[in-house]
Amino acid sequence: MKELYNNSIQAVKGGITSAKGFAQAGIKSGIKTSKGRDLAALYSKKPCCASGTFTTNSVKAACVKWNKTLLPSENIHTVICNSGNANACTGNRGKKDVYDIATQTAHLLNIKMESVLIASTGIIGEFMPMNKVRRAIPVLISSLSKNQKGQFASAIMTTDTKKKECAVKVSFSEGSGIIGGCAKGSGMVNPNMATMLAFIATDIKISAKTLNAILKEIVGMTFNNLTIDGDTSTNDMVLALANGSSSISVKKSEDIAIFKKALFYICNKLCVKLAEDGEGATKRIEIHVSGGKTNNDCKAAAKAVANSNLVKTAIFGCDPNWGRILCAVGYSGARFSEKNISISLCSIPVYCKMHPVSFLKYRMHTALKKRTIVIDIDLGHNGKGYAIAHTCDLTCNYIKINAEYHT
Amino acid sequence: MKELYNNSIQAVKGGITSAKGFAQAGIKSGIKTSKGRDLAALYSKKPCCASGTFTTNSVKAACVKWNKTLLPSENIHTVICNSGNANACTGNRGKKDVYDIATQTAHLLNIKMESVLIASTGIIGEFMPMNKVRRAIPVLISSLSKNQKGQFASAIMTTDTKKKECAVKVSFSEGSGIIGGCAKGSGMVNPNMATMLAFIATDIKISAKTLNAILKEIVGMTFNNLTIDGDTSTNDMVLALANGSSSISVKKSEDIAIFKKALFYICNKLCVKLAEDGEGATKRIEIHVSGGKTNNDCKAAAKAVANSNLVKTAIFGCDPNWGRILCAVGYSGARFSEKNISISLCSIPVYCKMHPVSFLKYRMHTALKKRTIVIDIDLGHNGKGYAIAHTCDLTCNYIKINAEYHT
Repeated sequence: MKELYNNSIQAVKGGITSAKGFAQAGIKSGIKTSKGRDLAALYSKKPCCASGTFTTNSVKAACVKWNKTLLPSENIHTVICNSGNANACTGNRGKKDVYDIATQTAHLLNIKMESVLIASTGIIGEFMPMNKVRRAIPVLISSLSKNQKGQFASAIMTTDTKKKECAVKVSFSEGSGIIGGCAKGSGMVNPNMATMLAFIATDIKISAKTLNAILKEIVGMTFNNLTIDGDTSTNDMVLALANGSSSISVKKSEDIAIFKKALFYICNKLCVKLAEDGEGATKRIEIHVSGGKTNNDCKAAAKAVANSNLVKTAIFGCDPNWGRILCAVGYSGARFSEKNISISLCSIPVYCKMHPVSFLKYRMHTALKKRTIVIDIDLGHNGKGYAIAHTCDLTCNYIKINAEYHT
Repeated sequence: MKELYNNSIQAVKGGITSAKGFAQAGIKSGIKTSKGRDLAALYSKKPCCASGTFTTNSVKAACVKWNKTLLPSENIHTVICNSGNANACTGNRGKKDVYDIATQTAHLLNIKMESVLIASTGIIGEFMPMNKVRRAIPVLISSLSKNQKGQFASAIMTTDTKKKECAVKVSFSEGSGIIGGCAKGSGMVNPNMATMLAFIATDIKISAKTLNAILKEIVGMTFNNLTIDGDTSTNDMVLALANGSSSISVKKSEDIAIFKKALFYICNKLCVKLAEDGEGATKRIEIHVSGGKTNNDCKAAAKAVANSNLVKTAIFGCDPNWGRILCAVGYSGARFSEKNISISLCSIPVYCKMHPVSFLKYRMHTALKKRTIVIDIDLGHNGKGYAIAHTCDLTCNYIKINAEYHT
């Protein structure tokens, strides 16, 4: 998966409805007190094979519980997503609200309520303003269109400063299909917590079971290695829908391999966009770990570095502080060779085989002033393990954004 | 251990040499470029039973490796501790430097080198300036005295703004003894990482084996539940020395129970002082978790809350954001009852049995402006489990302190 690009995979303009047969809408329903869209729908007339991965937090929002009972499924038609209210820690009332949204949407689209997936992000512990939601859903459904570009991605934003969308055209043995995706997440949601949501829609034909297995694998390599502040929300989810509109069937092992690469490309790209827009971030940080005995060793090391406040503040301060990086690897639980581990920062070697490597200070300083910082770590076991983690620097603005809300 | 105070335990003025038979010294050797003492010694003419707990980081400083080979021991006479240089990631040269310090100290005190424990805190990846250290050790040893109050505690400071010392007088069945302690740690060390060092000296008579078992238990309940920024340094250690000068023997089970309480008092008190002085902190946060099935469940929940950047920034901003607290418990891995969990902030209930509890906003705001914030969490399992974790708020000054160093 190191080699992200491939002749079979071509980045194209677009996003969540670039694949054939998907429509979208995003409207302002009034859930958010601020201006801006806050209710989104993604829809496919053809039923989709769909899969999802969800937060590991034991406290799960009502919509997470709803989707988990439905997925994987071969009969999903729509995803309804709101921003401004997480519908988490809302007990039986929250459960009923999800049920009501699914029922109303199903009725309007003439589908079963089990064909409706739901996602929410926003304030925790407050009930959904259902009077507003009920009034808005018919408007939302009637706005569904192939051409409402970016409206879904925009209506799911909270503290995000930018929409996050991408798409690829993928050549399989039978012909080509499209995968589109979008995501939101920026740190945490005013006033509560980080929610990371991502949606992927493709027109290839793939079984729900295969899609499910591949999604879990790729999410493990991408979104699960993304951290803004180390907090796992009650609402996190990644949903993937495949409606088969392209008639391109992905079954053969070579096609599955291409699909995995393409899905990795989409998920990794969305991680990059999420990290870039991390709350208060001035820089995006990418941690590449190789040379480990297993992928899991590399992942553990990469995530520990990505989660280290000390590493993140050092990068903010343009400090080539490799000691903090080595220290984080040390407590990560990853197996590494103390004698052979080496570290590079912005492609400049800083530590190798138990010795600091001297470098030109002005060169390092110039490199650390850039918007993207790459940390390369070789665990020194000469193994095939590999992992990437994504994060951003930790800045005063992060603190301000998250401290200045007063209940 | 909830009940910290006890008729048998009485806080007294003093610190690391309050117990009989201990002397201390702290001098300026020049290891630190800043002014101030940077080399400390603790000494007992009588050999001490001694025990230690050490960083779990796989990258361990040379002094940590040295002490680990010696402890537990019945023949420790001295601890030499320097600030300004961590002697970590320094390979064979670092190992040799520790050996040289032990040899020189042993020679001057006429003891074996295996009777010398060593601790370091400061810059990682730089060699100890051994010419300065070698010149300073004779001065240090000749300065040893019972009366150099606070010099040891002051010479081990790095970014700490205050000395951290305390002592108790403890009544056992045979008579009374003294336990004194001191610690350092404030976030991280310019320019590198957090090191938490604590030293405990008592004049009771206790076997090295018993002391070792008790120290591990109490450190698990106190220092291991303290977090400033979630980073575990290469140099962390807690050392306990008992020289038996009081002739009070702690062997009977009731005396061991009293000793545990007293040691908990000392360690907990030092944690409070460390949390208060956390880098950039404006407030100290104490998280009490009860009602769990086991102590470990409570500990996992307490530590997750203490490590949450979101909780810590909310407290900085006087935001009673119980959603972030509940969320951290949710991903902590602790077993809890979703239906019965309850949370109080500054003794004001905010969440109970799946429902937010309304409170007077002005009362909460006044409470959150205080310097000490207590979060109480009942995991709702009606169990006997209990844990306390210590931390501080996360502020812009933390970011500034840790970003502004430029290598």
